[in-house]
Amino acid sequence: MPEQLFSYKQLFDFADTIFQKIGCSPEHAETATKTLLSADLRGIDSHGIARLSGYVRLWEVKRVNANPDIKVLHETPSTAVVDGDSGLGLVVAPYAMKIAIEKAKNVGTGWVSVQNSNHFGIAGYHAMMALEHDMIGMAMTNASPLVAPTFSIDKMLGTNPICVAAPAGNEPAFVADLATTTAANGKLEILQRKNADTPVGWVQDAEGNSSTDANILKKGGALLPLGGDREHGSHKGYALGAIVDIFSALLSGANYAPWVPPFPAYVPMPAQQPGKGIGHFLGAMRIDAFRPAEDFKKDMDHWIQGFRSCKTIPGEEKVLVPGDPEREFEAERMKNGIPLLDAVVADLAQLGNRFDASL
Amino acid sequence: MPEQLFSYKQLFDFADTIFQKIGCSPEHAETATKTLLSADLRGIDSHGIARLSGYVRLWEVKRVNANPDIKVLHETPSTAVVDGDSGLGLVVAPYAMKIAIEKAKNVGTGWVSVQNSNHFGIAGYHAMMALEHDMIGMAMTNASPLVAPTFSIDKMLGTNPICVAAPAGNEPAFVADLATTTAANGKLEILQRKNADTPVGWVQDAEGNSSTDANILKKGGALLPLGGDREHGSHKGYALGAIVDIFSALLSGANYAPWVPPFPAYVPMPAQQPGKGIGHFLGAMRIDAFRPAEDFKKDMDHWIQGFRSCKTIPGEEKVLVPGDPEREFEAERMKNGIPLLDAVVADLAQLGNRFDASL
Repeated sequence: MPEQLFSYKQLFDFADTIFQKIGCSPEHAETATKTLLSADLRGIDSHGIARLSGYVRLWEVKRVNANPDIKVLHETPSTAVVDGDSGLGLVVAPYAMKIAIEKAKNVGTGWVSVQNSNHFGIAGYHAMMALEHDMIGMAMTNASPLVAPTFSIDKMLGTNPICVAAPAGNEPAFVADLATTTAANGKLEILQRKNADTPVGWVQDAEGNSSTDANILKKGGALLPLGGDREHGSHKGYALGAIVDIFSALLSGANYAPWVPPFPAYVPMPAQQPGKGIGHFLGAMRIDAFRPAEDFKKDMDHWIQGFRSCKTIPGEEKVLVPGDPEREFEAERMKNGIPLLDAVVADLAQLGNRFDASL
Repeated sequence: MPEQLFSYKQLFDFADTIFQKIGCSPEHAETATKTLLSADLRGIDSHGIARLSGYVRLWEVKRVNANPDIKVLHETPSTAVVDGDSGLGLVVAPYAMKIAIEKAKNVGTGWVSVQNSNHFGIAGYHAMMALEHDMIGMAMTNASPLVAPTFSIDKMLGTNPICVAAPAGNEPAFVADLATTTAANGKLEILQRKNADTPVGWVQDAEGNSSTDANILKKGGALLPLGGDREHGSHKGYALGAIVDIFSALLSGANYAPWVPPFPAYVPMPAQQPGKGIGHFLGAMRIDAFRPAEDFKKDMDHWIQGFRSCKTIPGEEKVLVPGDPEREFEAERMKNGIPLLDAVVADLAQLGNRFDASL
């Protein structure tokens, strides 16, 4: 796949400029850019700068408000509901996470459910905001309906990711960031570009039959919940995706289930809108609200070292701890640059022309 | 499989008597019995009265303290750590969940991590305690190491279940109660009794090869995390099991990872014990700490009805909502009785002889 390398700073300046050109304040543009590019750094290319033009298209059709008046609708000492005012999720979610962290400072934990937002990039960025405060961070979001629950043909849930980030001592933090499907949509896109099939258990066709066609979503097919089918526990992946939907949207008053607004601006909005925008759920737990942070972090180091020293199955090099692959990507890409596919570069060049910005 | 039917009351009186005979107070015996039998009622037979003699054996070897002094070690307005004093998890977990609920009444949410406990029955019982308060309930526990992380031969985690229970309005509550493995150990036991193989993706052998032998755990094999293998997302099931371990044990100071005490009393304790007993994590979120409970419950009804009316894949009758199968079991068994395998009845009869109690 032909690609070019760009430095983090190059991409940062470009995205920051574009966000300001569509009307974001300098502060919001910076936050949106940091959030967006954390995906590129961490190797989750589907959620990074490749989506910049998608966000701009949402702004064009007035589904994204570049100057949102983000506000707290209701709160208690440990909870809040935030109205994102149709802002970029890239900006709204960090705002909500800061509230969660403040509440955790005051009463031990903070939990913020968000309505009226848009896609927030990778869950990992938001959850990891808690780490520097010696807190465990959590982030979830619902998303466009691409996933069929167990036994269903209808697509009722998004890939609804969950991230939990927990600090360690000498070891790097534990960061589990996972879509609640067998494979996220980005994995399908990679196979599409390679003209390759998916493994069994990733997707089904429009009639609900098992499929290995990486293009099946365009033909009415669906992603499958983690587990793939009933025999392999897909009812659990479905339940996890449902939990994310309930925490993110039912608790906040956002749209839920098949009524979540789609990311592509050209896809019509669902006829029914039971809530506002899309929903997120952010949480922070202060470690020393439970036990001394030093004790916890020492145990985390021991825990992590235990997993790293597991005996591996034949042919595998090592047992990974959640967060390892993304952290290795981040170190490598910060040093050597971020590779972008030619198609993405061309898309960004077009955006640059339009907004008088250059990559 | 030959079995006999017993009324809930018959089993309740029997288990309650046994718990009192080993020294539980009447109040603790009643709580332990209710928790234990909720598994039988809900169709999770592996976690119900079939385990009663297992709990008694743990008491015999002094790993269960029938008269625990359960206490709060540390707390903030929204958190607490509870020391279970080696009590039955069946008693300790409801105690901790009550604290979570009280905290949620005061500050919106409550989160309790528990150390020095024992197996707590089904997660669902504890999470569902929140429902009558118009709260979302959560329950997790770590457990004996039976699960190999992705790429590992070593068994590092338990089946570490997660339950989330959320109230609805006219519809029954949403109750997702799931082991973070492809299949829980109880499913293997059913196949063992039938002399049947497991599907691919449930277990691996002692060398880490894929296996379909339902007896493989006795031969050094392991259960696999939800997903089964890397290609099907087992790193996600592994991450979820790890999250449960961190919340339940690293936050509380309980044993974690492969150092969690085994349930069978005849299995020696791990050589290393980095914490105390096994760990749980209980949570409660007051709905109206986010938005009016009536609005939430109306949306939950709409959500549930949406899933129930999905078009089904060929050959399937209906799309289920998490909690449906267990609720149907409960209604049926409360009315018609609880079936116990002859082997379980014989085991209980022996227990009854010893403690002068009859079934």
